[in-house]
Amino acid sequence: MRIEADYRIETAYALQDAAAAMAGEQSSGTFLPVPGETEELKARAAARVERTLDLGEVARALPGAGGKGVTRAARVTLSWPLGNMGASLPNLLATVAGNLFELKYFSGLRLLDLRLPVEFARRYGGPAFGVEGTRRLAGVQGRPMIGTIIKPSVGLSPDETAAMVDMLCAAGIDFIKDDELQADGPACPFEERARAVMAVVNRHADRTGKKVMYAFNLTGEVDEMERRHDLVESLGGTCVMVSLNSAGLTGFTALKRVARLPIHAHRNGWGALSRHPSLGFDYVAWSKLWRVAGADHLHVNGIRNKFCESDESSIASARSVLTPLWDAVPCVAMPVFSSGQSAAQAHDTWAALGSVDLIHAAGGGIMAHPDGPAGGVRSMQAAWEAAVAGIPLAVAAKEDRALAAALGLFA
Amino acid sequence: MRIEADYRIETAYALQDAAAAMAGEQSSGTFLPVPGETEELKARAAARVERTLDLGEVARALPGAGGKGVTRAARVTLSWPLGNMGASLPNLLATVAGNLFELKYFSGLRLLDLRLPVEFARRYGGPAFGVEGTRRLAGVQGRPMIGTIIKPSVGLSPDETAAMVDMLCAAGIDFIKDDELQADGPACPFEERARAVMAVVNRHADRTGKKVMYAFNLTGEVDEMERRHDLVESLGGTCVMVSLNSAGLTGFTALKRVARLPIHAHRNGWGALSRHPSLGFDYVAWSKLWRVAGADHLHVNGIRNKFCESDESSIASARSVLTPLWDAVPCVAMPVFSSGQSAAQAHDTWAALGSVDLIHAAGGGIMAHPDGPAGGVRSMQAAWEAAVAGIPLAVAAKEDRALAAALGLFA
Repeated sequence: MRIEADYRIETAYALQDAAAAMAGEQSSGTFLPVPGETEELKARAAARVERTLDLGEVARALPGAGGKGVTRAARVTLSWPLGNMGASLPNLLATVAGNLFELKYFSGLRLLDLRLPVEFARRYGGPAFGVEGTRRLAGVQGRPMIGTIIKPSVGLSPDETAAMVDMLCAAGIDFIKDDELQADGPACPFEERARAVMAVVNRHADRTGKKVMYAFNLTGEVDEMERRHDLVESLGGTCVMVSLNSAGLTGFTALKRVARLPIHAHRNGWGALSRHPSLGFDYVAWSKLWRVAGADHLHVNGIRNKFCESDESSIASARSVLTPLWDAVPCVAMPVFSSGQSAAQAHDTWAALGSVDLIHAAGGGIMAHPDGPAGGVRSMQAAWEAAVAGIPLAVAAKEDRALAAALGLFA
Repeated sequence: MRIEADYRIETAYALQDAAAAMAGEQSSGTFLPVPGETEELKARAAARVERTLDLGEVARALPGAGGKGVTRAARVTLSWPLGNMGASLPNLLATVAGNLFELKYFSGLRLLDLRLPVEFARRYGGPAFGVEGTRRLAGVQGRPMIGTIIKPSVGLSPDETAAMVDMLCAAGIDFIKDDELQADGPACPFEERARAVMAVVNRHADRTGKKVMYAFNLTGEVDEMERRHDLVESLGGTCVMVSLNSAGLTGFTALKRVARLPIHAHRNGWGALSRHPSLGFDYVAWSKLWRVAGADHLHVNGIRNKFCESDESSIASARSVLTPLWDAVPCVAMPVFSSGQSAAQAHDTWAALGSVDLIHAAGGGIMAHPDGPAGGVRSMQAAWEAAVAGIPLAVAAKEDRALAAALGLFA
């Protein structure tokens, strides 16, 4: 029962030596030979270099590396016995992504992917709601959930937030989230906001029979997150949101253990972990930690987003979180497409992903629609209906005024 | 009452526009103007660009950025009203280091420093032990604490670990830590290890009157960390260790609230956040979050370390964690020097830092000493005595056999 991790490395050392140094440093070896590292100990605790694949010559990406001459990139797979750390996500992280980014052997080191023994799934359980549970609570089947984010991100009072929610519920939205900047600041306390918003959401649900899912950003200390979760549940809310990098793995797990609502997982700060292609994490690897831990919704950016991420990367992320990790415990999360989204991206998203199991969140794409938010929501639904039916965007726009107006503004 | 953050940015846009985009994106603005962003709302919630300093032309460091033509680096200071997020470390992190690393304006963005309102200190309290409390528990005054790490990092059984601790206690060590790879794996369960190690530590303390401080790596889920902390305390232990990036801020804080022992904070994984100079975090900024949260010991690498970090960077980190944040609540942590350390670095460390308030941890520098661990410990103490007394290393080595032997091997 071993853990496997794939890396992309850059090194000026012999590839086998560099890979062996990674394996040694992250298991029983160290810079100098030590007396206790017997063959027997190595047999039970040493990491192994499973595979290496030379990817050819590259320029040095990161400063500080040693070695002379040509630097080469390679794909390296290491494995560890589960006995070293057990099925513990925080200790897994220290093993596969601990003190190795700084090793002098490497002018680049990035964790690409992880394969874990099912013990992790058995212990943590993965998402409690995922796609199916989210759809059930939101009352949306057979199409993407159309969502939006409260804007301005921060600065609205609880009543102003509720007024915006009122407008969005009237517009037929499926999903609304707090911005990650809005949690429990004194200018908009969580409890007041939750009470004001849920009064509006519940009123619309009584009217329509469908309850808009509102992801309340309860990011805070563990006891605060637990208390806020319980408040949201008591008010009839159906989702909570956590900033993953703020909470960290163990705070997230503490919340997850007592949570009875889907957890919308926000990845803000992800850029620091990923933006240099020779350093940090691929989302495929990083998101697996959170899927095992139980994130129900995971942000993946979107097609033609306003950030630096490529379309290919966003789609790879979404495909990944929709791909089961284990048959018994799939750990499938609902991908959240956002950033500069509107009806204009539905066709391309469908073509690339081939699934409607996603939350498609648009800010300006809904709020700035010429016919108002209802037009924005309608335009996105119309675009997805057309995309799935194989009707080209331009053709569909001729039949739908809201879609035509959206494309006039956003395409 | 505002929060200030300093960044180094790289942008091909007009510097003022790029800085305004950062401020907008991380407070009340967004990509498109939205109706609710009134002047009054901006006045209460908008981040401000406090200062910009053009640092001149640079090559583009990170892919994906927009803009054409010359890219310039700059130092930018932003500020936010405390009312946006309150004195909450996780929400502070989402504000100062959230979705901005990915903005298309930037081909580089790094958080350099933070200045926080004292409300953060009042809420979190900072280190409960710091330098003074650690010295008191370890019985070491007026000189650095000499420390080491159990090696092999992982693979030893509880009894084998205890046997090594026995040797190190006999050698006169002040401080021992688990490796970050060793927490509670099935091959070396935490409880068994703690019991076996503390039996040895207590036996030596009875003999010498001075209890060696052992930092038990209790990294795990929040309830596990709390339980392990209580076990260590009940066994007479005087320190626990946490991998910061594994626990995350909120899990760390949950432990800190109930902790009655110093917390040795391990930064493994730090390389992913810092190694590219145009991305991520300077340690000065990042370590402030953990100092406020209550880390008693913070790793800073060391002079001529085996990783990629420069001596200047290590010393700047150590100086920073020793510099009070507020008069009333200094949040001073004890810097931990490690990685390729031995008696050979004492003089240079003293010359650069001008303080003996540190843990100087050596693995091979102690274990591989020709006279054994006792010689290693003695050599480091002798080197520091000489350094502080102004006696050159070569002169001191003539007077001290252990020091001479160490320099023969390590210098």
